[in-house]
Amino acid sequence: MPAPAALITLDWGTTSLRAYLQAADGAILDSRTAFQGIMSLDGASFADVLTANAGAWAHAHGPLPVLLSGMIGSRQGWVEARYVPTPAGLADLAAGLTPVPDAPHPFGPVAIVPGLLRDDADTPDVIRGEEVEVFGALNRLHRADGLFVLPGTHSKWVRVDGGRIARFSTYMTGDVFAALKGHTILGRMMQSEPTGAQPIKAQSVEGFRRGVLAARALEGPGGLLARLFSVRALGLTGRLAEADSADFLSGLLIGTELADATRGHEGFTLVANAALTERYAAAADLLGLAHASAPAGCAPAGQFAVAKAAGLI
Amino acid sequence: MPAPAALITLDWGTTSLRAYLQAADGAILDSRTAFQGIMSLDGASFADVLTANAGAWAHAHGPLPVLLSGMIGSRQGWVEARYVPTPAGLADLAAGLTPVPDAPHPFGPVAIVPGLLRDDADTPDVIRGEEVEVFGALNRLHRADGLFVLPGTHSKWVRVDGGRIARFSTYMTGDVFAALKGHTILGRMMQSEPTGAQPIKAQSVEGFRRGVLAARALEGPGGLLARLFSVRALGLTGRLAEADSADFLSGLLIGTELADATRGHEGFTLVANAALTERYAAAADLLGLAHASAPAGCAPAGQFAVAKAAGLI
Repeated sequence: MPAPAALITLDWGTTSLRAYLQAADGAILDSRTAFQGIMSLDGASFADVLTANAGAWAHAHGPLPVLLSGMIGSRQGWVEARYVPTPAGLADLAAGLTPVPDAPHPFGPVAIVPGLLRDDADTPDVIRGEEVEVFGALNRLHRADGLFVLPGTHSKWVRVDGGRIARFSTYMTGDVFAALKGHTILGRMMQSEPTGAQPIKAQSVEGFRRGVLAARALEGPGGLLARLFSVRALGLTGRLAEADSADFLSGLLIGTELADATRGHEGFTLVANAALTERYAAAADLLGLAHASAPAGCAPAGQFAVAKAAGLI
Repeated sequence: MPAPAALITLDWGTTSLRAYLQAADGAILDSRTAFQGIMSLDGASFADVLTANAGAWAHAHGPLPVLLSGMIGSRQGWVEARYVPTPAGLADLAAGLTPVPDAPHPFGPVAIVPGLLRDDADTPDVIRGEEVEVFGALNRLHRADGLFVLPGTHSKWVRVDGGRIARFSTYMTGDVFAALKGHTILGRMMQSEPTGAQPIKAQSVEGFRRGVLAARALEGPGGLLARLFSVRALGLTGRLAEADSADFLSGLLIGTELADATRGHEGFTLVANAALTERYAAAADLLGLAHASAPAGCAPAGQFAVAKAAGLI
């Protein structure tokens, strides 16, 4: 007999959302995915989309509280949620919840999880949504420390000490890959599939391997910029097949990211994004970096932990 | 009384060409610019374009020899000219000329200057056209050594020792800038002008300055990749004005290029491209790098030197 439904959560990003009906003990009773991210609403209101995806749960189980995380709290989202400065733990996120005024019927109170801010004068950074997944990963792995990465268009590396997020860094690796492949001379020799987001086994393992090893050989802060054109020159001189070139670039960028982000760390844990996780794990193996993968479901687990810390359930 | 006309040369690139009528002593008797690069021929043949831009000179002065340099010798050009491996001097370029079969009437023999190849197994590089400008700069500056940069979509850094090109490196800085600005999240806060190719005085000096200083603070081969997102985060946290952000990115990239390319060198000489030269000079000043600028006209001076070495005049 499962515990009764107690909470609705949405991981609401730019292009899609994932909605969860959670029990009082954190069990996932139901879930739903929709391509209705904040930039793809097609004219619908945020309230409309919430109702379409989670209204039936509230009708069935009463006015449950609703917790939203991700880009829904950005300036382009429903209500702009603040950024909480690091270091920050669950209690800080819970204390920083932003209520959505006029929560639509038949829901209970609706609130948005704050983002985190690395408040450095010269190198500030922001994160929205992934920090919740990290708390979910800590919960599911029964850990309070570690280095976590959430690969994506903008990879987020998150350092946790004593249950609090001490520091995080964004690497625009996927975004940079797509821009270089689609809009510089490097793309001329590449095939048109969006390689970066695809499982490595479907692509060129050899090209990716060579790119990662090239990353390992880089020197100095300009090393990557100096190395990019060689992807083209390797092709012109017959040393790199066209079919390998996109994955070479992917390996070069991901390898550079991995080497930089793990400096001074023992190992790291991959969270979410199955296709990219495989690619990051392969690169880590080539670089001799210890790594593990968090189980699936970190986002709702983290949302549950925040809701509990906030006294919503 | 000028020396008689002796040579026609064309610096024929991807988007435009510059044609010169040169005297036997290297004086420029006439010149012409056309936006008829090899990728913008509008259906005309290479012979048609040569005739349209230089035919009147040959009619007036007889069947002068014609020397072409630049992307006209690439696979997409008139005839593919070989790559000569570095180190290479004027004699090597002269010995590697590729004749154009069936030179159109009323020209004398038409030949294309070879490109150069850095024949490294892992990091090969190629150059076509800029190497000729470097030989022109050596000639005009009465020098046989030095580090030269030709800023552009793909900046070329060329190291000359004893009159021969010892090594060169391509930095895709302009190409990368345009791709990041036009096709990643960084561009969302930037204005739409193609900043990178504009004179710095018309843009944000302050944004550029901050970007160059940020480049100076980078550490490790992943430093640039790790720093890119801060351009966005600086804006989100109100620390960088939207109007400054494109030039901040330009400064970050150019500063990174300069610091990397000049490692272990005493100083460098800027060749050609007035707008970008100003930007590179400003960045070099901020980084405390010694630099000078070559006089204008290095391309025809280099072509003249190659023609002379090849016995064409």
